[in-house]
Amino acid sequence: MSQAIINDSEVDIVISVLNSDLRPFLNEWKTIFSRFHLIIVKDPDLKEELQIPEGFLADIYTKSDIERVLGSSTSVLFSGYSCRYFGILVSRKKYVVCIDDDCVPAKDSAGNLIDAVAQHIVNLTTPATPFFFNTLYDPYRKGADFVRGYPFSLRSGVDCALSCGLWLNLADHDAPTQALKPGQRNMRYVDAVLTVPMRTMMPVSGINIAFNREAVGPALVPALRLAGEGKFRWETVEDIWCGMCVKVICDHLGLGVKSGLPYVWRNERGNAIDSLKKEWEGVKLMEEVVPFFQSVRLPQSATTAEDCVIEMAKIVKEQLGKVDPMFSQAAETMVEWVKIWKAVKSG
Amino acid sequence: MSQAIINDSEVDIVISVLNSDLRPFLNEWKTIFSRFHLIIVKDPDLKEELQIPEGFLADIYTKSDIERVLGSSTSVLFSGYSCRYFGILVSRKKYVVCIDDDCVPAKDSAGNLIDAVAQHIVNLTTPATPFFFNTLYDPYRKGADFVRGYPFSLRSGVDCALSCGLWLNLADHDAPTQALKPGQRNMRYVDAVLTVPMRTMMPVSGINIAFNREAVGPALVPALRLAGEGKFRWETVEDIWCGMCVKVICDHLGLGVKSGLPYVWRNERGNAIDSLKKEWEGVKLMEEVVPFFQSVRLPQSATTAEDCVIEMAKIVKEQLGKVDPMFSQAAETMVEWVKIWKAVKSG
Repeated sequence: MSQAIINDSEVDIVISVLNSDLRPFLNEWKTIFSRFHLIIVKDPDLKEELQIPEGFLADIYTKSDIERVLGSSTSVLFSGYSCRYFGILVSRKKYVVCIDDDCVPAKDSAGNLIDAVAQHIVNLTTPATPFFFNTLYDPYRKGADFVRGYPFSLRSGVDCALSCGLWLNLADHDAPTQALKPGQRNMRYVDAVLTVPMRTMMPVSGINIAFNREAVGPALVPALRLAGEGKFRWETVEDIWCGMCVKVICDHLGLGVKSGLPYVWRNERGNAIDSLKKEWEGVKLMEEVVPFFQSVRLPQSATTAEDCVIEMAKIVKEQLGKVDPMFSQAAETMVEWVKIWKAVKSG
Repeated sequence: MSQAIINDSEVDIVISVLNSDLRPFLNEWKTIFSRFHLIIVKDPDLKEELQIPEGFLADIYTKSDIERVLGSSTSVLFSGYSCRYFGILVSRKKYVVCIDDDCVPAKDSAGNLIDAVAQHIVNLTTPATPFFFNTLYDPYRKGADFVRGYPFSLRSGVDCALSCGLWLNLADHDAPTQALKPGQRNMRYVDAVLTVPMRTMMPVSGINIAFNREAVGPALVPALRLAGEGKFRWETVEDIWCGMCVKVICDHLGLGVKSGLPYVWRNERGNAIDSLKKEWEGVKLMEEVVPFFQSVRLPQSATTAEDCVIEMAKIVKEQLGKVDPMFSQAAETMVEWVKIWKAVKSG
């Protein structure tokens, strides 16, 4: 990994908490997380007191903090994994790293512990190359460069706004795939980071991501909520929707999105077969969501992430609203989210 | 690597020969190549007798074979690395694998010899997924699958027509990069194959590729020739131009292009500083070539690779012809190539 000069005070680690005992999770991450400020957001449905070990600089947000900020607003919901978005809302840092609480640090092929935060910051602080694909992956990495034929005019790249990490052990499959292949594990460590090309959509998972909050923070919006949303990743699609919003907005604003390193190790949890009914709804929605995001274009007048979310909400309402009321609800939430974002930002 | 059922008689290995002593090259590849039929094409400028070890099933083509097929045609040139395209022209097999004669088999991270031919055939015989990016790379690989959020309707993929392999040791840099970083070597084995997304252009190198000749053979055209073209890879751009032609045609015909495994080991050759003058011309052309291929769209009436090359030649002539006469020449060559292709095909 290239060395990035990280100013620790520019980074927030946001952790959404669905289980009260955070000790196993935080102790595993101690050497990596203890340098940084943590924003811990408790799922409003979680009643038990949090158990947090010593040695961390953390601010904890609970149901009452959420209610205070939301005021009379009712469309934005911060329950389940969506409580994470509250952490994004209250962060004041340039970079935010989000890691789900069922993940621990992974090891690379040589058995070394992977510092996922450092790798995310490297990804975000080196340029991205969305306009032409470099076959030898990240050209800014130590020992790498652009391949013959890569136009020199594109070699300075663009700013990277979103870094999507991956997972070893339990891969991020949907419930049908998990149910079909319960024993399948992802054990292949692919030592690469690549820029996802302009206008290419992909399923961004919220399990292990980082982003430049100043550039695209408002685009990280908890908008699409399934009627029967559950508490396992495979029972949600909020991150998939959010990821496609961010990707379209990055493409529009000329910013880059990277995928690949760092890996985290995902532990098993839940029963895929029990989740099948809930997830199936999300799986069906993707058939509408993906073609929509592939074709949506934002007006040139939208020059900030806030503008872009508002414009996107209008188009979602117009084009997807008639397909399913969940999409109209998502559009409303996006508008409301930007209002709250601006209110929090202005004090 | 997944197991592909390879019918050996469906594969031709095409080797363009710029150095007469093929013994070191072929002996290194013996365990891999000896099962297959080889098409060896001698650079017409090469005077010395070829030295080929025993144990290979090979057809050898020389200047006189080329002249016989070309007849009175003068625009298609098969000199230098372009002699390889003559091998593509005379092949009768479904799959063609091309590997430059300065490459030997590479080893994977565990030290095992990589069977580049088998991996190329796996790439070509499993589907490609150009419409949506799978963050865990090739979903058809053993132990892999589609990530949550990937639309089920896109999971059957499309046929893969082109497989672009990579290089360890001497990476495929242009002469300026080689001259600037003479000691740089690519030693990172990235254990992945990915589909290059729809409408994403990349620099296809001719060093280590394979393709479905029946689907896109005519699109592998030796069209763009530099005025001062040299005998080293970094002194040529014929493969870069050809690769973008094939990518646009695959996108148009709904076929896939993959990049990644297999690696070959590239040995050093040549002096990058001596080549700088020649290569600089190619580097400048890319500034025109890349935006052109990013924006070109073929008419719906073009339904075969032959049609597509003819249509592309028209647009090249119209749009790039005024920029540099080399492009007009390329357009003429493309038209002539299709004529020759059809003539050879029909007997």
